[in-house]
Amino acid sequence: MSSAVTIVRFHKTGSADVLQFDQIPLPEPGQGEVRIRVKALGLNRAEIMFRNGQYLETPVSPSKNGYEASGIIEAVGPDVDSKWIGKAVSTVPGTFKLNEHGVYGEVAVVPFHGIAEYPSTLSYEEGASIWMQYLTAYGALVWLGKIAKGDFIVITAASSSVGVAAIEIAKAEGAISIAVTRTATKKAKLLELGADHVIVTDEEDLVVRVNEITSGKGARIVFDPIGGKILESLAAATAPKGTIFEYGALAPEPTPYPLFTALAKYLTIRAYTLFEVTPDPIFPKAKQYIFDHLASGAFKPIIDKRFRFAEIVEAHRYMESNAQIGKIVVTL
Amino acid sequence: MSSAVTIVRFHKTGSADVLQFDQIPLPEPGQGEVRIRVKALGLNRAEIMFRNGQYLETPVSPSKNGYEASGIIEAVGPDVDSKWIGKAVSTVPGTFKLNEHGVYGEVAVVPFHGIAEYPSTLSYEEGASIWMQYLTAYGALVWLGKIAKGDFIVITAASSSVGVAAIEIAKAEGAISIAVTRTATKKAKLLELGADHVIVTDEEDLVVRVNEITSGKGARIVFDPIGGKILESLAAATAPKGTIFEYGALAPEPTPYPLFTALAKYLTIRAYTLFEVTPDPIFPKAKQYIFDHLASGAFKPIIDKRFRFAEIVEAHRYMESNAQIGKIVVTL
Repeated sequence: MSSAVTIVRFHKTGSADVLQFDQIPLPEPGQGEVRIRVKALGLNRAEIMFRNGQYLETPVSPSKNGYEASGIIEAVGPDVDSKWIGKAVSTVPGTFKLNEHGVYGEVAVVPFHGIAEYPSTLSYEEGASIWMQYLTAYGALVWLGKIAKGDFIVITAASSSVGVAAIEIAKAEGAISIAVTRTATKKAKLLELGADHVIVTDEEDLVVRVNEITSGKGARIVFDPIGGKILESLAAATAPKGTIFEYGALAPEPTPYPLFTALAKYLTIRAYTLFEVTPDPIFPKAKQYIFDHLASGAFKPIIDKRFRFAEIVEAHRYMESNAQIGKIVVTL
Repeated sequence: MSSAVTIVRFHKTGSADVLQFDQIPLPEPGQGEVRIRVKALGLNRAEIMFRNGQYLETPVSPSKNGYEASGIIEAVGPDVDSKWIGKAVSTVPGTFKLNEHGVYGEVAVVPFHGIAEYPSTLSYEEGASIWMQYLTAYGALVWLGKIAKGDFIVITAASSSVGVAAIEIAKAEGAISIAVTRTATKKAKLLELGADHVIVTDEEDLVVRVNEITSGKGARIVFDPIGGKILESLAAATAPKGTIFEYGALAPEPTPYPLFTALAKYLTIRAYTLFEVTPDPIFPKAKQYIFDHLASGAFKPIIDKRFRFAEIVEAHRYMESNAQIGKIVVTL
């Protein structure tokens, strides 16, 4: 029973090459924990930033990594009901630290409160492509933003898994999504995925196009993980009393605060991450909302590309290329 | 009846010297307007920015100026009830444009909906020192910020008339005010005016002191008209899920958005001005709240210094010196 397993860790921060396959003794779940035999991993931008040492959490070497795994529970801690053994679950970001419980590996030990069931109609790959994207978008758009029928929602980095989830959530709530992407290569796919409008920033002026689409009103909600110099344009494209959710820091440059535009329109800039949702009383409701929309088919996780476990370094590199639309998945 | 009157206008933007005394024919109030025989003018920072051409509203030469006058209604437009003639009122910023209705003058013609009565116990000087400061602070702290007993409120530029009003409103609501001022010269006066704590930024570290005062919690609300580089410190001093109200742009430098601090604590940065209050259904309630607190003596407009009408250029210069605590008033 104490056979070794392989997990992926990094012993120093840096490019994708720092990820390495480490043999460790099969870890036993402690109090309040479960061990999952991993079937699929869903990659996230946060894990690249963490690997680079540029994330909210600071790595402690050797550091685990990975927020999202799906698989089968194969062992439980002493205080966890053993009826969970054998169930298919996936892990929920925001419920554990990457250092301690990062899920990149043949097995992952995570807190029991950090797992969730998903509809049995979903594959393992889809099961590893749920919680980061839908919880992040739900928290900003539905919980805090209270989007409603007819609201215009600007979604930047729209091809990311969170961006696509935001498009689906906007549709489910009757709002009108304006997907923003840099190049024309992803435009057709974004429309196919349900975006009501797509703005290609290499070819079109964001502010002019949002004004056209909204008949001069501007967007009530902006959902942006980029920051940096785009924030001024986003503020100019926001309706009076509108809200810009900043949920990431992808831009390498500093972010100027658009003070005069904001004062003239009473704008709210709300910094937000998924980590606000998971400890909040809204969390069970959020999970149920997502489960129900997955079960009904309203939400459908989009898998962009699959890699084998041995190719996880290539999978990280592929994410850094920004070629994907939707989720990059590693299968075991 | 068509005797000339003197008003103050500027024909080009610039330093205080551009203000000039212009003789005009006695203006008659039009539809929905009243004419006030001005007794006192309360000066505002906004009027200096407007004079400099750096305000939300752009001057059109020759431009009037001035938001706050108190005086006696001496004529009304054809559709305004003549029973208002003879009443003492003051003018409410945010209800008219400075270009069109600026009140610097022996008389001022303003919209009827832009005047308000104030308790008869107040002098004309105090009557011209109400609406900008109390409405601005009320809108952010009570209406939008919903401050409550025990909340820590950081108030920057605390010696300004709005700053002092915010200290009074914090006290009225049971919140704990932390007044921020640059030099030690105003500390004793701010404590005397009711500030629970005073931080002197030339001598003390703002973040360290707020952490001490709040036992590490940070301030739930920050009320700041400065912007610029202080915003990063203010964000560091704000409690998780706290709100920073930006209600001005006094800093000459650009304002960096504190993205990482904001993401780590889910901060809201809300740009806000008085102009959001006056057209809103909250406006009558706000006026009543202020009237009642003035009548009870809970609020007491602080007059820093008085100037005669002929000295209005000096009064502007004095405001630019930042020596004042409370309101600078011009009497007629």
